[in-house]
Amino acid sequence: MLVTPHGEVRTPAFMPVGTQGSVKGLSPADLRASGTQILLANTYHLMLRPGSAVIRGLGGLHRFMAWDRPILTDSGGYQVLSLKGLVKVSEEGVEFRSHLDGALEFLTPERSMEVQADLGSDIAVTLDHAVPLPLDPAAQREAGERTIRWTERSLHRARELEPAGGARQLLFAIVQGGGDPALRKEMAARTSAFECDGFAIGGLSVGEEKRETWALARAAAEALPADRPRYLMGMGTPLDLLEGIACGVDLFDCVLPTRNARNGMAFTAAGPLNIRNAEHAGSERPLDAGCACEACALMSRAYLRHLHLAGEILAHRMLTLHNVTFYQTLMEGARRAIERGLYHQYAREFSERYRERDGNPPAPA
Amino acid sequence: MLVTPHGEVRTPAFMPVGTQGSVKGLSPADLRASGTQILLANTYHLMLRPGSAVIRGLGGLHRFMAWDRPILTDSGGYQVLSLKGLVKVSEEGVEFRSHLDGALEFLTPERSMEVQADLGSDIAVTLDHAVPLPLDPAAQREAGERTIRWTERSLHRARELEPAGGARQLLFAIVQGGGDPALRKEMAARTSAFECDGFAIGGLSVGEEKRETWALARAAAEALPADRPRYLMGMGTPLDLLEGIACGVDLFDCVLPTRNARNGMAFTAAGPLNIRNAEHAGSERPLDAGCACEACALMSRAYLRHLHLAGEILAHRMLTLHNVTFYQTLMEGARRAIERGLYHQYAREFSERYRERDGNPPAPA
Repeated sequence: MLVTPHGEVRTPAFMPVGTQGSVKGLSPADLRASGTQILLANTYHLMLRPGSAVIRGLGGLHRFMAWDRPILTDSGGYQVLSLKGLVKVSEEGVEFRSHLDGALEFLTPERSMEVQADLGSDIAVTLDHAVPLPLDPAAQREAGERTIRWTERSLHRARELEPAGGARQLLFAIVQGGGDPALRKEMAARTSAFECDGFAIGGLSVGEEKRETWALARAAAEALPADRPRYLMGMGTPLDLLEGIACGVDLFDCVLPTRNARNGMAFTAAGPLNIRNAEHAGSERPLDAGCACEACALMSRAYLRHLHLAGEILAHRMLTLHNVTFYQTLMEGARRAIERGLYHQYAREFSERYRERDGNPPAPA
Repeated sequence: MLVTPHGEVRTPAFMPVGTQGSVKGLSPADLRASGTQILLANTYHLMLRPGSAVIRGLGGLHRFMAWDRPILTDSGGYQVLSLKGLVKVSEEGVEFRSHLDGALEFLTPERSMEVQADLGSDIAVTLDHAVPLPLDPAAQREAGERTIRWTERSLHRARELEPAGGARQLLFAIVQGGGDPALRKEMAARTSAFECDGFAIGGLSVGEEKRETWALARAAAEALPADRPRYLMGMGTPLDLLEGIACGVDLFDCVLPTRNARNGMAFTAAGPLNIRNAEHAGSERPLDAGCACEACALMSRAYLRHLHLAGEILAHRMLTLHNVTFYQTLMEGARRAIERGLYHQYAREFSERYRERDGNPPAPA
């Protein structure tokens, strides 16, 4: 259980991604119906458009996007460092060009926390220096040390920004450490020394092999204090979530259920399916017989396939609603199983039925 | 009141357009919430994709699109005759090429009714020969006479297709007659002689000046029998609907509320607005203070503008939901005013507040 200014979050929990202040076609009513307790919104995108001052002026992000449950914002670092083109990292921060208009921008640990304070999210995350793997040991060490220094600056600025009264934003510090389990462990231990409300494990959603990823995630998670929540950033498939829970992760986010919906991919208890496939052309079955979403209650695979092929946005919306509901139902089951002390049985039974085709879901566009 | 196999329709009523079997991002629950009683679906589009046999095999259009209230299908003639490229009209029917794959197709009065029977709509419309105006008198006469002959063939084939038991599809015969009020009147009178359940007034949504349009619509409506419903095809703005009701029209359809939503246009009691305009950038107001839709209950103009500019499909969906709700609320008010004998006051009061900028709503893309 995580207590935030906008209410409690039962953990483990999955956060759908509302990059630009909306979860791809889903309204607040849809999100509630899906079982979503908490959303992620991207600091980078909202900072550039419409701008955090605009959102603050309109009463903050909750009011802006008409969502009165908890919101976590990331630091913006991951998006900025993923930008194509000129990105210059210095000790002070990251210089980059906006993907919207090419304007020169500068993201520092302080600015990230200022933007997140403007947005008024329930949970803010410190700025880190994430680097793509594989990386040589010296560069990994350097990025890790910089992340520690930026964490300190982030938390310092966040304390200054805290309102005198009223609800306080929770602060999560990011653990980096590249692809070396020993460095991960060290960084987790050093990050644990910070006064903060929880920890984010970053830099694991890109580039590594699955087995290595879990070795790294486990090394970090085990070195973090048991009394504070752990958030594994940007992961992953349904099986990843189950593995993460087993490693002691409390909070997840991933674009898979929303992004892949736009490509026609739907999650089911038997594994992902692609609604474009001809096998669904005459199928009266719902996407998933056990799902409670509006699409599964009312619509056949044949209809959803037709909508997708015809380019109707209702296809994207219904598959997105289904996929988010699927993820939330998986997490609700996990929470129930944990309460009963039956988590390993739950995860095993799900995994036995669930087949990731070719070992992976269809690649996002 | 119109009684159909899938329930009653209180009139006057507005039908949102579900061209390809969905109303642009709105789910069945959204449509019900908007106050929609009856939808229009396009025979032309569904005939080509996924094909009427596929829909029949899946239990008909209601089950296919998960809509258990009434559906009207058009004849397909309007879309076919609007196609760019080769369209050949003969006495037998219309030869055309599919906009999807260029395949040669042939639409006859008989085939139109067969497709509509496959779809299982509550109301089917006979095939007409619509022609763009202005047109020389001889060509107008020829298209009108052909429409009379095609109406006879359509109704004949529809009778043959009627099931031995069970609910019978209602049949509406189209009145054409081009831009000449006298010819319109004659065609309406001759069409009235057919045994059918109602009448559609066609060919008025394209090309004419507003004042001429209403002269033509009035000429047709007055010559039609008072005991059967009149459907004015493809019209129009909120003020058009009020004018049409005054002419005795019972049923309307138009793509304006759905198509213009995609261009950022929202209807309000004060007239249409474009959400892209800078004036809405900081506005905390809803689109329309009196509207009951989810967008107006929860979302500011500033948020909807942001979503639209960011290319988020939630913008299209919310504006579509709002516009359809706005139209349905207008019609609900009209029905209530008619019951009380206060329709002219209702229409006058609405018109006095409502300003169509430049006399017309923004042009659809």
